[in-house]
Amino acid sequence: VADQERRADYGYWLELSSRWADCDAYGHVNSPVYYSWFDTALTTLLIERGVLRSPESPSIGLCVESHCRFLAPVEFPETVDARVRIGKLGDKSLRYELALFRRGGDEVVAAGWFVHVFVDPVTRRPVSLTDRQKQAVADLCRSV
Amino acid sequence: VADQERRADYGYWLELSSRWADCDAYGHVNSPVYYSWFDTALTTLLIERGVLRSPESPSIGLCVESHCRFLAPVEFPETVDARVRIGKLGDKSLRYELALFRRGGDEVVAAGWFVHVFVDPVTRRPVSLTDRQKQAVADLCRSV
Amino acid sequence: VADQERRADYGYWLELSSRWADCDAYGHVNSPVYYSWFDTALTTLLIERGVLRSPESPSIGLCVESHCRFLAPVEFPETVDARVRIGKLGDKSLRYELALFRRGGDEVVAAGWFVHVFVDPVTRRPVSLTDRQKQAVADLCRSV
Amino acid sequence: VADQERRADYGYWLELSSRWADCDAYGHVNSPVYYSWFDTALTTLLIERGVLRSPESPSIGLCVESHCRFLAPVEFPETVDARVRIGKLGDKSLRYELALFRRGGDEVVAAGWFVHVFVDPVTRRPVSLTDRQKQAVADLCRSV
Repeated sequence: VADQERRADYGYWLELSSRWADCDAYGHVNSPVYYSWFDTALTTLLIERGVLRSPESPSIGLCVESHCRFLAPVEFPETVDARVRIGKLGDKSLRYELALFRRGGDEVVAAGWFVHVFVDPVTRRPVSLTDRQKQAVADLCRSV
Repeated sequence: VADQERRADYGYWLELSSRWADCDAYGHVNSPVYYSWFDTALTTLLIERGVLRSPESPSIGLCVESHCRFLAPVEFPETVDARVRIGKLGDKSLRYELALFRRGGDEVVAAGWFVHVFVDPVTRRPVSLTDRQKQAVADLCRSV
Repeated sequence: VADQERRADYGYWLELSSRWADCDAYGHVNSPVYYSWFDTALTTLLIERGVLRSPESPSIGLCVESHCRFLAPVEFPETVDARVRIGKLGDKSLRYELALFRRGGDEVVAAGWFVHVFVDPVTRRPVSLTDRQKQAVADLCRSV
Repeated sequence: VADQERRADYGYWLELSSRWADCDAYGHVNSPVYYSWFDTALTTLLIERGVLRSPESPSIGLCVESHCRFLAPVEFPETVDARVRIGKLGDKSLRYELALFRRGGDEVVAAGWFVHVFVDPVTRRPVSLTDRQKQAVADLCRSV
């Protein structure tokens, strides 16, 4: 289950900071913000590895499904440690699995997943990932 | 499946407008915004029915899990029609099922769910929903 | 001063709803949200009147300066009434003056302004507004 | 003018990261996000220095006015360097002056200000800043 997530099971990481506006009237980071953190972590990953915004990468990833379990509150001005792995490397899609850890500790504050379908930026029709795009993230695939 | 959702299967509705800031660099509403729409629709429902913010309702609902399938893009300045039903009325939790329809049509643009655990506002420990709270939403329960 | 703003002094209006996520830890709508409301109101205005997104309107408006005075708190799930007028119709820019009123009352909750410079969407260099664009908003100019 | 701002004129700094959701349909960070960055920088400052959330600090700061000039676009996933100084240390208010610099360079991407009135957290009536609160930020006052 999600509470047993370990940092070592996720090959990519990124620090994510909270903003004052993230908190809702209950004083903690509002749940939709976590999805924005997920989106930020995996899009940064895709840009860094040339899956997006590179000459050889003629597609963009659109989110078709996402999910999150919220395990502990996060408060401003905390920073969380996002971890990402590829749960499934499909022909036209990537499934990302993500976990957010409290900084400097092993507590998982949230765990979820996110599915991108890759499409042509103009027609918005699904297109196959190129070998180059697949290779760029292959090392992050979940070990079975 | 989600694309077969029908307005009639959801007892509560609310119009939700888009904002210029909701769009991302791909020109359509960014996926985390849908969760914010879900949160807005179901919290409005809870306030209107006295489940939250009424003298007889000494608990608050915290989101512990959510999920969404994104079926069609929404663009600014579109308004969507949110529909909500109760998927499960638990002792200390409510599971909401939501669908967003394109205004004036039958197209489902997103479908998802959201689980609130009700807690004491001070201790943040789970507490049972009162009979009054349960009755307030009983008519929205999904028919089997 | 801003507290003396009257609805009648602004020719364009739009209802803006609050979202659960808009509130910060102090329980009211966070101040940056007001700028997002301003942006939503004036961009809707520009789209409705064909200043943006029409064949005769080959420019986009980029915000170069904005300002707001916050006069009263707004809480979820309140809806506010946004009013907009044109403070200055320049050759390559528009200055919008905005006021937000509490629904169903005369209380001004915020008043501010926002300046768009119109630029070519590709080069992002300033371009003159066409006569058509100017005429489309001329009736909203502040009377002296 | 704002384009001549220098890092050295601001005593407090904080790195602020962009999020995928921050970009609007024009592909750059939407202007209201800058105010959220301002709010994040100065609230972090206030918490770090014990002006907020400390036993000796029985007030909260509410934004009554803000302003920003946008000088250059910021794109995801850029990080900006926020600088803050105190423009005016009043009896019941603080005026913050802020500038955002492009990381690793001298380019100012935005400059603005933000005024907090300090109020009792329950009654929301203005209260005087304590000597302790004033001393905590005195070194950040703009030199004349």
